[in-house]
Order: sequence, then C-alpha cells, then structure tokens
Amino acid sequence: MTEIKVAVLGAAGRMGTQTCAAVEAAGGLSLVARLDKDDVIDAGSLAGADVVVDFTIPATTEANVHAALDAGAHVVVGTTGWDDASRGRVAEHLERLNAARAGGSDQTPGLGVLIAPNFGLSAVLAMTFAAKAARYFESAEVIELHHPDKVDAPSGTARHTAAAISAARAEAGLAPSPDATETGWEARGADVDGVRVHAVRLRGLVAHEEILLGNPGEQLVIRQDSFDRSSFMPGVLVAVRAVVSRPGLTVGLEHVLDLA
Amino acid sequence: MTEIKVAVLGAAGRMGTQTCAAVEAAGGLSLVARLDKDDVIDAGSLAGADVVVDFTIPATTEANVHAALDAGAHVVVGTTGWDDASRGRVAEHLERLNAARAGGSDQTPGLGVLIAPNFGLSAVLAMTFAAKAARYFESAEVIELHHPDKVDAPSGTARHTAAAISAARAEAGLAPSPDATETGWEARGADVDGVRVHAVRLRGLVAHEEILLGNPGEQLVIRQDSFDRSSFMPGVLVAVRAVVSRPGLTVGLEHVLDLA
Amino acid sequence: MTEIKVAVLGAAGRMGTQTCAAVEAAGGLSLVARLDKDDVIDAGSLAGADVVVDFTIPATTEANVHAALDAGAHVVVGTTGWDDASRGRVAEHLERLNAARAGGSDQTPGLGVLIAPNFGLSAVLAMTFAAKAARYFESAEVIELHHPDKVDAPSGTARHTAAAISAARAEAGLAPSPDATETGWEARGADVDGVRVHAVRLRGLVAHEEILLGNPGEQLVIRQDSFDRSSFMPGVLVAVRAVVSRPGLTVGLEHVLDLA
Amino acid sequence: MTEIKVAVLGAAGRMGTQTCAAVEAAGGLSLVARLDKDDVIDAGSLAGADVVVDFTIPATTEANVHAALDAGAHVVVGTTGWDDASRGRVAEHLERLNAARAGGSDQTPGLGVLIAPNFGLSAVLAMTFAAKAARYFESAEVIELHHPDKVDAPSGTARHTAAAISAARAEAGLAPSPDATETGWEARGADVDGVRVHAVRLRGLVAHEEILLGNPGEQLVIRQDSFDRSSFMPGVLVAVRAVVSRPGLTVGLEHVLDLA
Repeated sequence: MTEIKVAVLGAAGRMGTQTCAAVEAAGGLSLVARLDKDDVIDAGSLAGADVVVDFTIPATTEANVHAALDAGAHVVVGTTGWDDASRGRVAEHLERLNAARAGGSDQTPGLGVLIAPNFGLSAVLAMTFAAKAARYFESAEVIELHHPDKVDAPSGTARHTAAAISAARAEAGLAPSPDATETGWEARGADVDGVRVHAVRLRGLVAHEEILLGNPGEQLVIRQDSFDRSSFMPGVLVAVRAVVSRPGLTVGLEHVLDLA
Repeated sequence: MTEIKVAVLGAAGRMGTQTCAAVEAAGGLSLVARLDKDDVIDAGSLAGADVVVDFTIPATTEANVHAALDAGAHVVVGTTGWDDASRGRVAEHLERLNAARAGGSDQTPGLGVLIAPNFGLSAVLAMTFAAKAARYFESAEVIELHHPDKVDAPSGTARHTAAAISAARAEAGLAPSPDATETGWEARGADVDGVRVHAVRLRGLVAHEEILLGNPGEQLVIRQDSFDRSSFMPGVLVAVRAVVSRPGLTVGLEHVLDLA
Repeated sequence: MTEIKVAVLGAAGRMGTQTCAAVEAAGGLSLVARLDKDDVIDAGSLAGADVVVDFTIPATTEANVHAALDAGAHVVVGTTGWDDASRGRVAEHLERLNAARAGGSDQTPGLGVLIAPNFGLSAVLAMTFAAKAARYFESAEVIELHHPDKVDAPSGTARHTAAAISAARAEAGLAPSPDATETGWEARGADVDGVRVHAVRLRGLVAHEEILLGNPGEQLVIRQDSFDRSSFMPGVLVAVRAVVSRPGLTVGLEHVLDLA
Repeated sequence: MTEIKVAVLGAAGRMGTQTCAAVEAAGGLSLVARLDKDDVIDAGSLAGADVVVDFTIPATTEANVHAALDAGAHVVVGTTGWDDASRGRVAEHLERLNAARAGGSDQTPGLGVLIAPNFGLSAVLAMTFAAKAARYFESAEVIELHHPDKVDAPSGTARHTAAAISAARAEAGLAPSPDATETGWEARGADVDGVRVHAVRLRGLVAHEEILLGNPGEQLVIRQDSFDRSSFMPGVLVAVRAVVSRPGLTVGLEHVLDLA
C-alpha cells in the first residue's frame, strides 16, 4: 500500500498543530503541506496531497473544501458551522467531479469528503453502540458531565445520542421508558424526544457521557470520557485512511468505522 | 459481655421477619420475643428484652415506644411516620425515666431510643462522608437512581444528602458551585438549597445514590447501591448494640457509627 | 404475523418456570406445552409447537433437541453441557432435515436451533460491543465483579470477552497494550491472550462486567450488571422470535441480535 | 485574622511554581519569598514568612526543614524521601524549640511541621473514608487505575489504602473477606494484608482509585480521580492554613482535615 500524502489547513491552530504531529507520527501517512489563513489553496500549495484535513473556521471551511476538491484531493473536515445547504453544495460538487472521472480513463475511486462533528472515537462509539442497543431495553436515560464553564445544557453530543436512542426505540415499536414520577422536574438537562438527559457540571471534569439502558434485572452502561483534545487524533487518522476509498459525502465518523 | 436480649415488634412483617432472623444469627444477641399486631406490649410479653426493635406501622409506632420504655427496655425504631411532636414526647418520656433512674440505686446507663429513617449502612455512610467532604470541594452534585415505579423525585435520601452538603458548604463559606449554564432545566430532579440533584429512573435498578465532588483536576465520587432489603440488617444490628449505651433520644444511624 | 407457539422443556425448573411466564406475558407468542422430566417429547406432547425452549440438564438436552427436531420444531437451548461433538450432531441432523424439506413442496424456511451460553442481553451486548470497539484503542482491560461464593476466576464470560478483544486486536495488527509494570502480579484474575482480566469478589454483588478501552486522552467503558435471573427473559424471547427464520445451527445470542 | 506570609522552596520547579501561583490567588495568604536551589535559607531570605512550603528534592528537604525551623517558621513538606530517622530528627528539633518557647514569654502556639505524602484532597479523603467505613462491611477490595507508564503495581496510595482497611477490619474483629475462589491469581495487583488490590493500566488515564465495600444486598464505592497535578493545590492551601495552629510534627494531610 502506498503512502497517503496529507495536507493540513489551519496548521497553526490548536487542532491543526496536533493533526500535523499525529500525521507525522503515523505509519503509512506523510505530511506534505501545512497551510494557514493567508495561504492560497490550489494544486500547487497542496503539493500533491491525497487528503486535505481542514481544521479552520466556519467562515472559510466550505470554500476550502471546494478548492481542495478542485485540486483533486479528498477532504476530511473537523471545522464546525456546516448546515444542510453547505453540505448539499459539497455533495453536488462531488457528484459532478466523480461523474466526469467515471467517464474518463481514471480507474481510482472517486473523491470523497468526510465531515465529522466529533472525532472522539470513544464518543462516537458510545453513541453508535447506544443506538444499536436501545431497541433491546425497556428504559434508557443519558447523563452527560462537563466542566462548569460550558454554557449549553445538555451538550450537543448528549442531545444527538438521545435523539438516536429515541429513533431506535420508535423503530422497534417500544413504549416510552416507564416512569411513575409525579413531582420534580427542575434539574439541569432536558427531555429529548422522550429520552431523559441529565447534565452534570463539575469543576475538574472535561467532557463525559454515560448512557444507561435497563431491563428487569439487568443494566447496560456505556460511558465515555474525554480528558483532553489529544483524544481526537486517533479519530482523525481513521478518517484520513478511510476517506480515500469512500467516494461522495459522508457525515459522521461512525460511518467509516468498521463495526461489522 | 453479657448477651443482649431482643424483642421484635411487627415480627410477622417483611422487615420484622428479617430482623428476627438476623438477631438469631448474630453473635451476642438473643431473640426473646416476637410480637405482632394483636399482642400487648408490656414487661410480660417482652420477656425481659433489653432492646425492643419496632418495625410496625406509623399508626402504632409511637405508642409501642412508650410501652416498651415503661417496661424498661431500650428501643430501636425503623417505622416511618415520626414528626417533631412525636419525637418530642419520646424525648420527654426518656428524660423523666432517666432522671428517676439516676436518683435511685440503678447503676446502668439510662434508657435510649434510636429512631433511624434509614438502616442502610452504605446509604448512611455515603451521606455522612459527602457532608464531611463537601467543604473541601468547589463543586457538588448528586445523582440518585431508582426503579421506575417510584413516584417522587428526587428521593428523600438524595434530598437529605443535598441539604447536608449545602449546609456544610454554607458553614465553610463556599461560593455556589460554578455553573455557566444558560439553557436547559427540564430534567427529572431538583435544586436543593443550591445543590443540583439528578433523578434517574431505570427498569432493573433498585436504589442507588452517587455524590460527585469536584476541584480543579480532581473528583471524589461516593456511590452506594442498595440491591435488596437484606441490606438493612447490618445497620439494625449496629443500632441494637449501640442503643444500650446511648441514653436519651437519637435520630439517625450515623450518630451511633464509630467514624472517629 | 401469526402467533408463534412455544413449548417449554424443564418447565418446572427455575428457568423453565420463568420462561413459561415470560412467554405467556409476551405479545405474539403463546404457550402450548409445559413438559418436564418424565414427559415424552414427540409431536403429540409438543402440541404443535413452532419453537421448543430447552432449560433442562446437560444429561438430557441433546436428546431433547433431536426429538424436537424430529417433531418438526425449531429449538432454543439454554442448557449447558454442549461440546463440539454434540453441536456437530445437531448441525448434521438439521442439514439432513432441511435438505429433505427443500426437495419437497414445503415453502417455509428450514428448521433452526439456537444454542446460547448466555441469554443476558446486557452481557451479550457488552461483549459484542467490546470486541467491535477493541481495534480502535491502544489499551484494553477487563474487570469482572461477582458474589464471593463463585469458585472460578475470572468468570467464563470475562474470559470469553477478553479472548474476543484479543482476537480483534490481533486482526487489526495492534501491538500489545502498553504496560511498564515491573512488579506485582498476585491479584485475582488472569492474562487472557494478552488482555488483563481482574476479578473482584464482593458480598452483595451478583454478576457484573466492565470493559475499559483507552487511547491518549480518552476512555470508553462498557459495563453490564446482572442483578437477578429475571434478566435472562428478554434474551430468551429475542431467541424464540429469531430462531423461526434462521435455519441451521446458531451458537450465541449475539448472532440473532439486530446490530446493523 | 491576619494574613499568613508564605515562602516557597523549590519555587522554580513544577510543584513550586503552581504553589506560588496558588498562594498568590488565595485569600488570607501572601507570598513573601520564592527560593530555589542556590538560595540560602535563613531569616533574611525567608522575609518574615510564617509558613515555608518545601517542594524541593529528597537530598535537601530535611536540611531545608531544619533551617526554616531555626528561622522561626512553620513548614509544610511535599517532597518525598522521608524515613523514620529523618522524621524523628524533625520531631526532636520541634520539641526542643517549642519547649524553649513555652518557657519564655511567647504566647503563640509552638512551631509545626506537616509532611504530606499526598496533597490530593480526593485521594486523602477516599483513603480516610474507606478506613472509617471498612469495619462495617463484610467484603473490601481496591481497584487502582493508572497510565501505562507507571512501573510499580499496585500504587503506593492503593497499598496504603488497603493496609488502612486491613487494620480497621482487624481492630473490629472482622473475619477475612469471603472468597471461594479456587483458581486464577495472575492479574496485576497484590494481596495487601488480606485486602485484594487490582491494578489497571490504561492509556488515557492519569491516577484513579476505587474502593469497594460490600454487605449482603448493598455496596459502598468510594472513587477518586486525579486528572492533573493542579489537583494538589487545594490540599497545599489547607495544609498552610492548618500548620500554624498545629505545633509539633504531623504526617499526613488527613490529620488536619476537619472531618468531625
């Protein structure tokens, strides 16, 4: 297998710096370009990169992706700020490029873009497993725990997890989680589509999530702890290695994990 | 050390039955009487008991205690339904009896009554340790987890724990637990005197409590699990052994635990 | 969808009794026969059962399965004592029956037998998720916790989990979990194919397993608690519903769970 | 209450730097001197400090303490490397100084030295509570979890905790924790005076300890997490504030915590 050449956009930022270091330390990958805010993104500056990793800012990330695609590179995006419209434009761009490529003599798979709201493997796996397991349990609740400087509650990850659990329960035709409670609904958290999410804020913590699933006589608990941002690098590397053989747009790291 | 003779009131009930069995199995204790609802409580029926254990019903428990005291026995009470007035009457009765005894030739310590809302050693210890530790931590939150048939939330134990933590924080002059949350206050639970209590309801669980205390870079978690009612028996035996040398009224098992 | 008719073998035993009750309470299933040790197993006594559930004893379970198959029923087996030879004979029997059926005019899928060493959904899911996640983490260890009357350590479930994690790590080409330890290898537990298994024995516990997976800056913990045997019933019902459309021999509940 | 003046030895080191910052940020304390390895320690360089905090190296810490005492300061020591002999010499020095002081007209309490092997409040409290609770539980085990670069197992803190639990159980006359295990003693960890200690090593973790106490039907779990070294500062401040009113030698932060 030939080496995958990687360019990093936002290379001087916190995540970009870590990504450069992680790519350089990883087997089978080589870092060919570090670009930051004043750099032009084109075939020249990308230096033959197979994969471009974007850790920039919401204002520039979409333009970066289109430029990287035009230069013939796959893209992994860790920047936030994407919505249905911007994702749709990237999907169209990919379709156009890959259709043209299919008509020609190029035998490689088409270009791919992977946009991941979360590169934490433990967080993505916790959410994925919780959704898969949910249909087999009578009760489900989520506890998320974060440092006390966080302004929103529950966290986006916990809301996303609860929504996925709720959808899985609905699909399996489960009744609502049993609950005889008559009083007391003033704690930090929310009811997300019928799944209770509790939000703990505690000095010393970073970002943690616990999913509790219960049946008569048994409990399954899936917990994940993110202690610092270095935890995102294994997920970024998984994404870089996967995107080269996954043409088109993929949203969410879970779709490139091998969980068969 | 001579054996402690024990009589059980409510001996045919669920807790009474377990208490009789636990007393019979315990070293240093002997079961001398099993009384239930149609039995008279007096020196005769108590058969020389040193300690009477009351697991009856709210309607009769106070009368039982006065009768047992008049028969010269110490009393351990596990029945609910006590309030300030009924506790006050027992305290007065004890004072009167013990004053009379002190004036006489009886050299034994005076009679004692121990009323315990909770005989679960793990629950009582969790609450006690949480209150002791609270003054040393910037943040404190409580999670209680119960079966989904429970109607009240948060549980009385969790409310009690949170109130004790709040009092300890106030006494130590701590600021409120830091919390930047701007949205999301609809989860099951409550704010008890500034301490957040989260209430989880999950099929398969019984009764569990987790106290989280946080400082920069560290966390202390005290968790207790009550899996079934047999868990109350060690606490009942501790109470029986302690009440004989603790004259007057004591409310709460924590006061007879040796935690020095 | 027509109702599935169920016969229970070992109907007077502990698991059999619970199975009868669970079948009767479940939607889409009806209990048509309760057989125990002195009953003949044939088309007559099985009363048209579509699925036979065997919770008997190692000495009779294999013969029961062959008899049930000859009577035209699918079988779910929860009895222990199976080995490669007895499983092989059942597989052959199924092949013979299903080949004959395929040649005829019967349009239903062939007969199926599901042998499950563990019907606990939380236990089976914990093991399955741990094996799937293992390839993405640098470190993996297992803690199993049981009541102190258990004679073997680590538990079979924990050994099985560790072996599955080890196999997944090997397949993904991972190096051994990092470990600089120079001293101290005398705790209860084992090294199962390079995965450390710790065995806790504690009064009050029943059966619990915790799988810890670690990467730089993050941790994924999958924990399951079995509080009592009622916890096996949801898994038995899943098996009964699945076996009718899964011809041939299946070993392990995980293969009939829908985790796609 | 007047301000406590603090001097820090080893002020340029990792712990010393944090201590200086913590003292400056704390109410009621002022930093009057930062000394490091080439500085002389005497009344002049200590600049009137009431309390000297020593975070230096084993080779110099004892001499530093004697010098600080001769300059009339209380001392808090976080440096390792102390043994019975060096502690004995400090105790004698304190006795001599405080006897002289008592004979004179000085009305303040005598000088104090507090040597703490661990300033982590959560770690010290976990150990202290575990020892207090141990006498009330039939079973006790300890799990410690650390990063995989640690060379010793179990950790010193876990050994210390287990020894304290063992002593408390012996004093209360408890039988050994029940254990029917016949096979399997090859896991990382140790038997410390009859208390099993399990040692987990996992990438991503820092330093964590979990004490499990079990009775029929209940469990008490005390867990502490140290995520980074900033966690020692609250304990250092507690020590500085306490040592001024605790004449003589004290070993262990637990003795100055207010846990009544």
